[in-house]
Amino acid sequence: MRTLSGLWIDRAARPTLQDQLARQIRERIRSGDLAPGDTLPSTRDLATELKVSRNTAVYAYERLMSEGYLQSSPRTGVFVTPSITLPRQSLQKTPAESRARRSLAAQPSLSAPRPFRPCQPDVGLFPLLTWNRMRGRAMRSEGRNILHYQASCIAGLPALRENVATYLRDHRGVRCDSHQVVITSGSQQALFLLAMLLLKPRDRVYVEDPGYVEARLACRNQGARIIGGAMDEQGLTLPPGDIGKISMIYTTPSRQFPTGVSMSLPRRLALIDFAARTRSWIIEDDYDSELRYGAAPLSSLQSLDRSDRVIYTGTFSKVLFPSLRLGYVVVPDALVDRFIELKHLTDDHLPLLDQATLALFLESGAFYSHIRRCRREYAARHALFLDLFAKSDLPLTFEPSDGGMNVVGFLPAGSDDAAWSRRLQESGFDVPALSHYAIAATRPGLVFGFTAFTAASLRAEFKRMRPVLEEAARELGGAGRKGRR
Amino acid sequence: MRTLSGLWIDRAARPTLQDQLARQIRERIRSGDLAPGDTLPSTRDLATELKVSRNTAVYAYERLMSEGYLQSSPRTGVFVTPSITLPRQSLQKTPAESRARRSLAAQPSLSAPRPFRPCQPDVGLFPLLTWNRMRGRAMRSEGRNILHYQASCIAGLPALRENVATYLRDHRGVRCDSHQVVITSGSQQALFLLAMLLLKPRDRVYVEDPGYVEARLACRNQGARIIGGAMDEQGLTLPPGDIGKISMIYTTPSRQFPTGVSMSLPRRLALIDFAARTRSWIIEDDYDSELRYGAAPLSSLQSLDRSDRVIYTGTFSKVLFPSLRLGYVVVPDALVDRFIELKHLTDDHLPLLDQATLALFLESGAFYSHIRRCRREYAARHALFLDLFAKSDLPLTFEPSDGGMNVVGFLPAGSDDAAWSRRLQESGFDVPALSHYAIAATRPGLVFGFTAFTAASLRAEFKRMRPVLEEAARELGGAGRKGRR
Repeated sequence: MRTLSGLWIDRAARPTLQDQLARQIRERIRSGDLAPGDTLPSTRDLATELKVSRNTAVYAYERLMSEGYLQSSPRTGVFVTPSITLPRQSLQKTPAESRARRSLAAQPSLSAPRPFRPCQPDVGLFPLLTWNRMRGRAMRSEGRNILHYQASCIAGLPALRENVATYLRDHRGVRCDSHQVVITSGSQQALFLLAMLLLKPRDRVYVEDPGYVEARLACRNQGARIIGGAMDEQGLTLPPGDIGKISMIYTTPSRQFPTGVSMSLPRRLALIDFAARTRSWIIEDDYDSELRYGAAPLSSLQSLDRSDRVIYTGTFSKVLFPSLRLGYVVVPDALVDRFIELKHLTDDHLPLLDQATLALFLESGAFYSHIRRCRREYAARHALFLDLFAKSDLPLTFEPSDGGMNVVGFLPAGSDDAAWSRRLQESGFDVPALSHYAIAATRPGLVFGFTAFTAASLRAEFKRMRPVLEEAARELGGAGRKGRR
Repeated sequence: MRTLSGLWIDRAARPTLQDQLARQIRERIRSGDLAPGDTLPSTRDLATELKVSRNTAVYAYERLMSEGYLQSSPRTGVFVTPSITLPRQSLQKTPAESRARRSLAAQPSLSAPRPFRPCQPDVGLFPLLTWNRMRGRAMRSEGRNILHYQASCIAGLPALRENVATYLRDHRGVRCDSHQVVITSGSQQALFLLAMLLLKPRDRVYVEDPGYVEARLACRNQGARIIGGAMDEQGLTLPPGDIGKISMIYTTPSRQFPTGVSMSLPRRLALIDFAARTRSWIIEDDYDSELRYGAAPLSSLQSLDRSDRVIYTGTFSKVLFPSLRLGYVVVPDALVDRFIELKHLTDDHLPLLDQATLALFLESGAFYSHIRRCRREYAARHALFLDLFAKSDLPLTFEPSDGGMNVVGFLPAGSDDAAWSRRLQESGFDVPALSHYAIAATRPGLVFGFTAFTAASLRAEFKRMRPVLEEAARELGGAGRKGRR
């Protein structure tokens, strides 16, 4: 019986047995220990020698054949490829390889959001079984064609675009046809592509201050100039007359991020009028429109606009689960073709099976039941979270708000909110400072999320946070602001 | 028993019963037929009246509650939200809405590639059951954390980056550490981001001519100037000395797309030397490196490069299935951080569950068995396809090639290959002209794929195509070229 002496298997190691086996044989070929043309033991002999199953040996050989290291013939069995060309530096391990091993050990595993990270859903509420059932159904009804590239799907799976259009018309009064709906990986991708499409270097973009940082970065990446617009109790204020031509306005009117202000109807109309007069684009990011706990929301800007200046975008990350990476944008007719062309060059269509699953999830009504459940849960958590603060004597004040996914706790005037946030960070909390989102100086505050945490964990984590905040209040409280980053 | 007269259910219609029901009630509220505060029949009464299951009524109501149209209280049951704000134009259907309905009917369903579309895998070979099993295993081992956004995964799931790095080191001699591997939605996204990162307007990009069109478009989108480089039997020729500074070279050295030429080792070394001397970047797109049917492939450019000028990219679309949308790029150390930052702004991390599934698929060895199976099948199809032509007297000539996913059938000198391609198109074939991929005039030819089609369908479709080609040969054959698009 032919054997290969010196091979060994470590049953406790992370790589599978066949991986270990393949790796050792590969190393021997690379090191010249096994020469081109050399025959190897049969899988049966190898399996007997190493006391592994025969399949393990078969898989290891198959892998090496697929890699081109080995070949087989009916007469001689398995042998080292005679014509094999080895990379020059195959004889020694590169430093990169040993570094990789170290970094693997150091890698953090996937984690849940730390308290009280803003804008994260509770994925525990997500009906995963239903979702998987829909996925199976999508697979069965579409068949293997759904695995192919589909030139007709650059803007999204047609059934999903239809269902999203219906949903947006019915829920948000968005005026749209499905041909204007483009499925993106989220509102961030929509923003990024819109910035590429609509902005030239030195164009002016008017954004909410404080506001969503990544929107500004996507525009700045195009060389645009960012101009912060102040917020008042009606929402984003209009651009002052003396700052020159504005090319784009980015806003979150339903519930401004992060302050939570809902833009008033008069302000909405004024903003639309401004955009029509100055021919600027409004990007309406309705990232958490589903999560309103009181009355029906105000009409979206897009639904009020008669000049096709509003581009409406949203995401399924917040209401389904963030790692899904599906969202949408409703593009005015005049931009649809150029937008889809750019999407084609960027990353073409998104994964089709997820899109088909989501289309069924919407169509079946499971989506609506899920939203309703989230809304109920989150409303209770919102009330609980504010109640915990109300019953404490912490120097944070909260303004009335309709919910969403986060609340701002304002700090005493003159506080250095970044320092407060760092204190919390050191104790394992993820609570950004309001100034983190700001361009100009802003009222100091902390931005808390509450949606990702159960009532029990809200209580427990609040209890753990309270002394940290008390200490911060004593040590940082009345101090003048230490300057901002 | 309270009823809502006039509601009706069409059991043959496409929307689900609950959708139909919800839609009709919604319309009544919007039209003012049901006023704010009006109570609705109980779900039991409604179900009895319409002869639908009670669940259907429950879901329809739930949906309308989640939309804010209805509310319920223990005393009065379900009623129209008293404070409801209706969008102004809710009373009539928009023209967009009726257009949407028409377009829905007209939508083509998902389709398999038409013969003989190049570069498409046979998704029938893909081990979907194994894949789904791995997906379940990934879900169980990672738990619900895999549904969360993961700031640590912008460049990809760590386990996948590790497995891809191992795969590239072992298979392609790519020198890389997992921290340099970024998971993208495919090589197209890698290219697009690299063009954004590395090119300024009017920079020169040197590309293979004929070559991959979307690579040129991604660079042109950045304002770069595209310079076509001629191909010879050793692959892409070096840039002539007199064309000025080249910023980037795009090449597919393993098997040039679409001609199939493999770049010789001397040419590889010369190209690397050129890039090092002129400080230009080489993008090595190894899109079908797995599909070689003969000896082990030559070392990748990246593995030969000592100056960190080569950026290596590839995709899983061709060897697994195209609608998965996962690929990778190996970025030199100096660019890693900027690349990941740009990825964060573009679309952030890709779907995590697919990535975890792929990581297990690689680790388990199922990936290697699958590649081996594809290689065996495709090699046979390649031989069969060429044999069908060899046995015909069609005026197409094929040059020897090692396989890959497509072959070029050269036409007689002076033929208008675009006209041939259109003839085929009219008969339901998807066979691009070689000139479609060209910048300068090129030898006329047709680009055929064979991998997506079984032996039986290759035979049947060839039989169907043969008279079309014969007719084209009679009518278009010797004619001078009619000019190109």
